[in-house]
Amino acid sequence: MEKLSSLAKFKQSCPFLGRTTTTTLRTLCTSVSPRYPSLSRLTERATQCPVMGPALQVRSNQMVAGYASLAGTAEFKQIHEEKGVFPVPTGTNIEKCPHASKAIAAARMAEDLAKVAKDKDVPDAAAPSTSKASGCPFHAAAAEGKGKETAPAGGFNYEKFYMAELEKKHQDASYRYFNNINRMANKFPIAHTGNPKDEVEVWCANDYLGMGNNPVVLETMHRTLDTYGHGAGGTRNIAGNTGMHLALEEELATLHRKPAALVFSSCYVANDATLTTLGSKLPGCVYFSDAMNHASMIQGMRHSGAKRVIFKHNDMEDLESKLAQYPKETPKIIAFESVYSMCGSIGPIEKICDLAKKYGALTFLDEVHAVGLYGPRGAGVAEHLDWEAQKRAGQTPDPIKGSIMDRIDIITGTLGKAYGAIGGYIAGSTDFVDMIRSYAAGFIFTTSLPPANMAGARASISYQKEYLGDRQLMQINVRELKSRFESMDIPVVPGPSHIVPVLIGDPALARLASDTLLAKHNVYVQAINYPTVARGEERLRFTVTPGHNIEQIVRLARAVDQTFTELGIKRTSEWVKEGGRAGVGMPGAERVEPIWTDEHLGLVNGTAPAVLHAGQKRIVDARAVRVTREKFDDLLGPYVEPVVQTVQVNAPALAISAESLQVPVQVAVAA
Amino acid sequence: MEKLSSLAKFKQSCPFLGRTTTTTLRTLCTSVSPRYPSLSRLTERATQCPVMGPALQVRSNQMVAGYASLAGTAEFKQIHEEKGVFPVPTGTNIEKCPHASKAIAAARMAEDLAKVAKDKDVPDAAAPSTSKASGCPFHAAAAEGKGKETAPAGGFNYEKFYMAELEKKHQDASYRYFNNINRMANKFPIAHTGNPKDEVEVWCANDYLGMGNNPVVLETMHRTLDTYGHGAGGTRNIAGNTGMHLALEEELATLHRKPAALVFSSCYVANDATLTTLGSKLPGCVYFSDAMNHASMIQGMRHSGAKRVIFKHNDMEDLESKLAQYPKETPKIIAFESVYSMCGSIGPIEKICDLAKKYGALTFLDEVHAVGLYGPRGAGVAEHLDWEAQKRAGQTPDPIKGSIMDRIDIITGTLGKAYGAIGGYIAGSTDFVDMIRSYAAGFIFTTSLPPANMAGARASISYQKEYLGDRQLMQINVRELKSRFESMDIPVVPGPSHIVPVLIGDPALARLASDTLLAKHNVYVQAINYPTVARGEERLRFTVTPGHNIEQIVRLARAVDQTFTELGIKRTSEWVKEGGRAGVGMPGAERVEPIWTDEHLGLVNGTAPAVLHAGQKRIVDARAVRVTREKFDDLLGPYVEPVVQTVQVNAPALAISAESLQVPVQVAVAA
Repeated sequence: MEKLSSLAKFKQSCPFLGRTTTTTLRTLCTSVSPRYPSLSRLTERATQCPVMGPALQVRSNQMVAGYASLAGTAEFKQIHEEKGVFPVPTGTNIEKCPHASKAIAAARMAEDLAKVAKDKDVPDAAAPSTSKASGCPFHAAAAEGKGKETAPAGGFNYEKFYMAELEKKHQDASYRYFNNINRMANKFPIAHTGNPKDEVEVWCANDYLGMGNNPVVLETMHRTLDTYGHGAGGTRNIAGNTGMHLALEEELATLHRKPAALVFSSCYVANDATLTTLGSKLPGCVYFSDAMNHASMIQGMRHSGAKRVIFKHNDMEDLESKLAQYPKETPKIIAFESVYSMCGSIGPIEKICDLAKKYGALTFLDEVHAVGLYGPRGAGVAEHLDWEAQKRAGQTPDPIKGSIMDRIDIITGTLGKAYGAIGGYIAGSTDFVDMIRSYAAGFIFTTSLPPANMAGARASISYQKEYLGDRQLMQINVRELKSRFESMDIPVVPGPSHIVPVLIGDPALARLASDTLLAKHNVYVQAINYPTVARGEERLRFTVTPGHNIEQIVRLARAVDQTFTELGIKRTSEWVKEGGRAGVGMPGAERVEPIWTDEHLGLVNGTAPAVLHAGQKRIVDARAVRVTREKFDDLLGPYVEPVVQTVQVNAPALAISAESLQVPVQVAVAA
Repeated sequence: MEKLSSLAKFKQSCPFLGRTTTTTLRTLCTSVSPRYPSLSRLTERATQCPVMGPALQVRSNQMVAGYASLAGTAEFKQIHEEKGVFPVPTGTNIEKCPHASKAIAAARMAEDLAKVAKDKDVPDAAAPSTSKASGCPFHAAAAEGKGKETAPAGGFNYEKFYMAELEKKHQDASYRYFNNINRMANKFPIAHTGNPKDEVEVWCANDYLGMGNNPVVLETMHRTLDTYGHGAGGTRNIAGNTGMHLALEEELATLHRKPAALVFSSCYVANDATLTTLGSKLPGCVYFSDAMNHASMIQGMRHSGAKRVIFKHNDMEDLESKLAQYPKETPKIIAFESVYSMCGSIGPIEKICDLAKKYGALTFLDEVHAVGLYGPRGAGVAEHLDWEAQKRAGQTPDPIKGSIMDRIDIITGTLGKAYGAIGGYIAGSTDFVDMIRSYAAGFIFTTSLPPANMAGARASISYQKEYLGDRQLMQINVRELKSRFESMDIPVVPGPSHIVPVLIGDPALARLASDTLLAKHNVYVQAINYPTVARGEERLRFTVTPGHNIEQIVRLARAVDQTFTELGIKRTSEWVKEGGRAGVGMPGAERVEPIWTDEHLGLVNGTAPAVLHAGQKRIVDARAVRVTREKFDDLLGPYVEPVVQTVQVNAPALAISAESLQVPVQVAVAA
């Protein structure tokens, strides 16, 4: 705001600023320069102006003299602690103090301005004549009403068009600012922000089980990197089809007890490419699509050119009435999800299979937010629904006849969420998978994923197939957080899954709540606004992992409670009075039971894993690690456990006896 | 063939085989079972049949008794060497012998059949009643004319449809069999096949510079894996936007001297998402697309719904006549490539910029097969064309006004080819990139790539920015191979780039040539057939890297020459007589000069790198490594070089003096 009022003065003297709308200026002013992160895009552009450039340089010097020399010193911290402006417990980040933060920001800005000045001194090698003398390039472009040389007089102004499209995003508050979040493998679920010393707790990532830092995953990836290097080096058809890809696909087929599986760059691509191919190939195909389906499925159906009929979310009556309108012989595909990731609802899989059978439709089930997380082996909700039979069948790849997973024709899943890796896949019949492999452009014409990532994904799937504890502990933590929220009158959107959506009901308030939690409580949870959810149903979407300890859960609940009070966000009891919204406080609503029962969680027979406490590391299951390692023997050789002995060398001579060291020794000395 | 004649007998007694066409049977018979790699899909299905199943089991036992016990024994090898059936030099693979190979295949098949039998013994947990008694599931499905329960009487038969689509691929010989190729980091450019002991030379990968195994790339990835784990854990908007992504995008923007860049899952997605978004947003947009453009661009333009006008490959007259048909104010995009990867031609970038300026069009340049490979810093052909000016400008991020790279509006590139990594990107103006970031579904709704891969990609770009030698040596090797081929009358499709396409002119012959080179010469080069190239222009496409040594190049040329003779493939002189084809032997054609001149290669001033000889490792440039390492100090900390001393512990006691070891020592003992 301060910036805008200063700018108002300049509007009178600057031809560019005078002509430009306030909204455009706000856009430029509030978005960050990609090259100089402490500067706004407006400031970066201004440095190129013959008037503004020198002025900014002067300001930069002033800032350095003022704030910057203080920033980060022990005195500074002490002064603020004494003043009680903001409590700064030892070990936490000084930047959390609004004064320190301002000083540091100023120092960085000064640094960046100096950098701009330095960068500008590099001579223009090709056209030394068009130097500073030609003035401000942004003014010139604006004055001529064009973005680049490619827009001649009378031509279309592309740059203006881009800016107008961005303004729309700013106007409906859907413009996205990305937080810089670096999730640290050794401190899960902690991440650092743009500043490596500024740590926050992550409460919205989709690495649901923390498999991104599981030791057997990382160890397998290190070994594969050493063996096969980085990239795959080609498409699957040309030099990019490795044993790691084939083994992963076999692992996936076995996971879903389907004859075949196929890996794509991502599940976005898997959904898009598969639905595009099916819909464009099947003669007269009609899609029946759940109203809440993911963007990737919507794109695929659209791109196919096939007819698309949308049915109300999870509404079987609506679906049946729509299916019944088409002849039996018409090819139909019912496309839906198991866990809907923004509201946490679960699709009625069995009922959809029944309808598919009755009307001759294929079933296409997206298990993206469920694989790794549901079922005795982590194969998803379709597996979870036949818990006992699936558990009894163990790791056999054969389908269990009549089971829900067997009745689904096409399952799609991701390697990028619960498996903590990258990539997506489809699983289904041999000929179906072979047909997609042979026709889907999005599969054929792209470099395949690197062998190391494929090995890491497979290790993750294998580990989760063998070990139930992570899934159980995650759901126990979900129960814990949900019940704490509920006891505090915080409105959780009810659902049977692991997603914990907290209703805010206003886009600006949702963003403010997210910002407040980050700034005041070191809690990182992204606000979910329109178009991802309906207007008026804006929310915070929490994801709880088995790696969050109980102290963190307790602190989170308190922080959210405090933020609700501070910002005056509506509680459940208030929604009840208003007749409810988005499932919260709806009159006559029945309680939704989680699909993980007490039996599944091991709470009945006492085998449930214990929640973590601060300082405790989560359990790594030795058997699952062993089974997983053995799967890589054929390509990586048997795993050799390194026995590390640390020897302190302070004495004038070091003697190591032959008894303790019977083999060749590598002595690594850190320089 | 043998299999088919046996099957003919069964046709009389088996209702399924009797009804099925010979082509379908050939499909099943020639494609490999995904679960049991030594069995065909037909054999795998047959194991489930009550008649065929037991018969196969008997055959399996016979095979074990016959061949299998011999396979791999020293005697076996010796016998065959003595017989001179196939020379087996010590150290080479016994499987290269046709007899041994047959024996080993039989042994594997017997093993797989035994495995099928074992797998079948696992009880059906959910529905124990539907066991073997219900007979052959494939017969049943075939008899009822349906694939699964989802196809009721009168419903569409999806499985039959998939099979019919696959038959089309078999009929026009475009069905793809993927070779299992595992490129070994420590033996570049050698890979092993499905059998880790069977090694082949790779001559068709797109890891053009061998950056997939560059030490600074791998070291950076190991460190990043340890620091940040595997997956990014979310979309760029939710928890998946890391410092590694931001730094990579800055590196890319700097590489192309553009204000901004954006990374996608792949360049397929980058092209598709960007062209879809632009074409659907720009009002009345018209695409002008080179006839040889890549599938990803074609998909993107199609998906956008915008009008698409195709101009003849690299034909500026045709392009201009088409541009002139539209009013100046109509938004237009000229979409083209720098290096066309299947023929090796190069787009007339400067002329296209001129036309774009004249008609008010945006330029969209795909540099996928050029980034890392052309220009003093590896920024692509657009950089290469202003060699001196670009070289003089060094690593400044500022655009060189009037340069060709500056005149291009949108550049897209890949991290998966010359950079040996994964992912794709766009680079262009700040608002253009921000607009795509804000609207492209294929960017927004997908998990971002893992931090370790982003770090590896950045290390690779940085290294290549600083070191010219790999690019030079690759082009020197390309010249060497092309000139050897030409001296042997082997028809190289002429072109100014690094691609070495050798014309075969027949799809079956192209595949046979590829198979012969693999089986007889351990040379892996994939045949390129329709629809990737026009019918009659089928070819082998060789890619030469700086890691191929001169002995390998000489051997390759001889192997290709021998294969041409053996299979009677037409030579250049024969194409000349026929009036030429695909650029080979065309009357009156001028000689095409490579765009890497003698000056660029350092051949004039004597700075050209020396070709490798057998046993030599390629040069790793220490300065480029140092500059690259420093870029990661902020996130990974300063790199610490491990000093490794190997100490043989055979003596009763080991003494290490304090002089040699001034610091704590980690002694790692392999168990």
